[in-house]
Amino acid sequence: MQIRTRISRLHTACNVQGVQLRHMTGLTNAIENPKAERIRRAADLNSRRGRDKSGKFLIEGPQSVREAVAYRPEVIQDIYVQVASTDGGDPLKAMTPTSRRIVESALEYEGEIYVHPVTAEVMQRLSKDAQGIAAVAGIGAMREAFEPTQELHNVAAFWQVRDPGNAGAVIRAADAAGCDAVIFVDECVEVFNTKVIRSTAGSLFHLPVLHMGTEEFFAWAQQHSISVMAADVYGTADRKPRLLPDVLTDERYLNQSKAVLFGNEARGLEEDVLRRADRIVSIPIYGKAESLNLATSAAVMLISMAMSSHIGRI
Amino acid sequence: MQIRTRISRLHTACNVQGVQLRHMTGLTNAIENPKAERIRRAADLNSRRGRDKSGKFLIEGPQSVREAVAYRPEVIQDIYVQVASTDGGDPLKAMTPTSRRIVESALEYEGEIYVHPVTAEVMQRLSKDAQGIAAVAGIGAMREAFEPTQELHNVAAFWQVRDPGNAGAVIRAADAAGCDAVIFVDECVEVFNTKVIRSTAGSLFHLPVLHMGTEEFFAWAQQHSISVMAADVYGTADRKPRLLPDVLTDERYLNQSKAVLFGNEARGLEEDVLRRADRIVSIPIYGKAESLNLATSAAVMLISMAMSSHIGRI
Repeated sequence: MQIRTRISRLHTACNVQGVQLRHMTGLTNAIENPKAERIRRAADLNSRRGRDKSGKFLIEGPQSVREAVAYRPEVIQDIYVQVASTDGGDPLKAMTPTSRRIVESALEYEGEIYVHPVTAEVMQRLSKDAQGIAAVAGIGAMREAFEPTQELHNVAAFWQVRDPGNAGAVIRAADAAGCDAVIFVDECVEVFNTKVIRSTAGSLFHLPVLHMGTEEFFAWAQQHSISVMAADVYGTADRKPRLLPDVLTDERYLNQSKAVLFGNEARGLEEDVLRRADRIVSIPIYGKAESLNLATSAAVMLISMAMSSHIGRI
Repeated sequence: MQIRTRISRLHTACNVQGVQLRHMTGLTNAIENPKAERIRRAADLNSRRGRDKSGKFLIEGPQSVREAVAYRPEVIQDIYVQVASTDGGDPLKAMTPTSRRIVESALEYEGEIYVHPVTAEVMQRLSKDAQGIAAVAGIGAMREAFEPTQELHNVAAFWQVRDPGNAGAVIRAADAAGCDAVIFVDECVEVFNTKVIRSTAGSLFHLPVLHMGTEEFFAWAQQHSISVMAADVYGTADRKPRLLPDVLTDERYLNQSKAVLFGNEARGLEEDVLRRADRIVSIPIYGKAESLNLATSAAVMLISMAMSSHIGRI
């Protein structure tokens, strides 16, 4: 993983004076033309084709851009930030306070992250969901950043997750539960899909998100002595699921390295995948609801396991 | 609550013969005109204005219509079901198997629920999200059905929930957790909003959903000796939240009648509301995620409390 030196800058002091700040902080001139080549190319990152062609992806909105700058600055190439006016005054003063704080952090990486003020019209062309700020980052650099730097003990795995909103929500849930990593298993939605990134609410930049085939996943788990726990309501003909509260009170389980594996949002886990899991667990339903959706199931299971693990038992 | 007699019918036997079935099961003729008056009026129920004017609401999709027929048949007036052809053959055979099972249940209420076969074009006019089946039901009858028939001990309350998808998801989570009722407090999204209903995945028909003002809610809780537990990350200046695992292991709490109160999706709970709660509880975040969204928080908190209550402790 590329390690960068934070360049200590005097931009706060510069702010006070507000003179020639644009020059001093490395902000480029505002882009006013929504048809500018670099805007067209950045907007193209909303499509798979655009990402594959350029090897870049788009990060939208203050929360995601802030977390990317804080945790993975080395992946960011450009930040586009909406300014109220382009009349040559201090661009930092023409941003929302939220955008300004993010830009001030990003300016610590001058020469590595380029900050481009843009008009509202240009921002609209770039992304409909940016709320004033978006960033372009490198897919290769992000894959490097995803390389785990330590042994994994507590993993959330998702088999054939296909919906971008779900994929983002489960990454966010795994992050909240303190998982070491997320593994997308078999054919899943592309993690650099703009909607996936938006739905992670910044969590994409907090933990490694890996991709493995089904064989590779089970081989990896065996090699690292990681117990695979399949989350499934039905189980197999021979093996019914254990209920989550039973698992949460089982001390043998709590001290073990584990991967909780969730199935596809519509079809769950295939019989063959269930058979290969070390155990099967389901969330009890106390009312008349038929089921919970994937993102909710993942949050309930991962966070209740985390609560149990952290305090010995809930 | 209006009690209905299930009219035992021989429609299964009729199916076998398939002769004059349409007549015998009370199915009306297929509607082919998307501009038909009753279709226009049903489609109008997608808007607040249309619902207010007619006192009816729309239920879309097999899951919701099935649960409505199973648990609240007395509120349903009409069912619209898409058929493949309208050539005068047996309409039950021209439906998807899923629709057909629902229609067969509904036909037990002949003379009370009217089933209208419609063409694909008509269904599309009625609703974009019906997946072949939709129903029209009475708001007044539903409000009657929402009257609790027993003392409430385990309630999920939501203050100023505004997003229809969230409102539906929290009703579903409360149902899964076995709550006795949901209370929407203060100004919330209208529960008969079509997207709210769709997002409950049928749970709207499983438990009472009440509406109260803020004053009324706290007065009701006090009158019924119900402890109000506010779900909030920050708490007030004088009172920090207790962490959920501490609450889950507190036996005094487990045996108490309680309402868990969640705040608005963007702003949480107001200071004044927090002060009036008996306690404040927050979900621990073990990773770097900043927060969980409302629907996820509600599911994690309500279901982990239910697991603790049902087994004494998790």
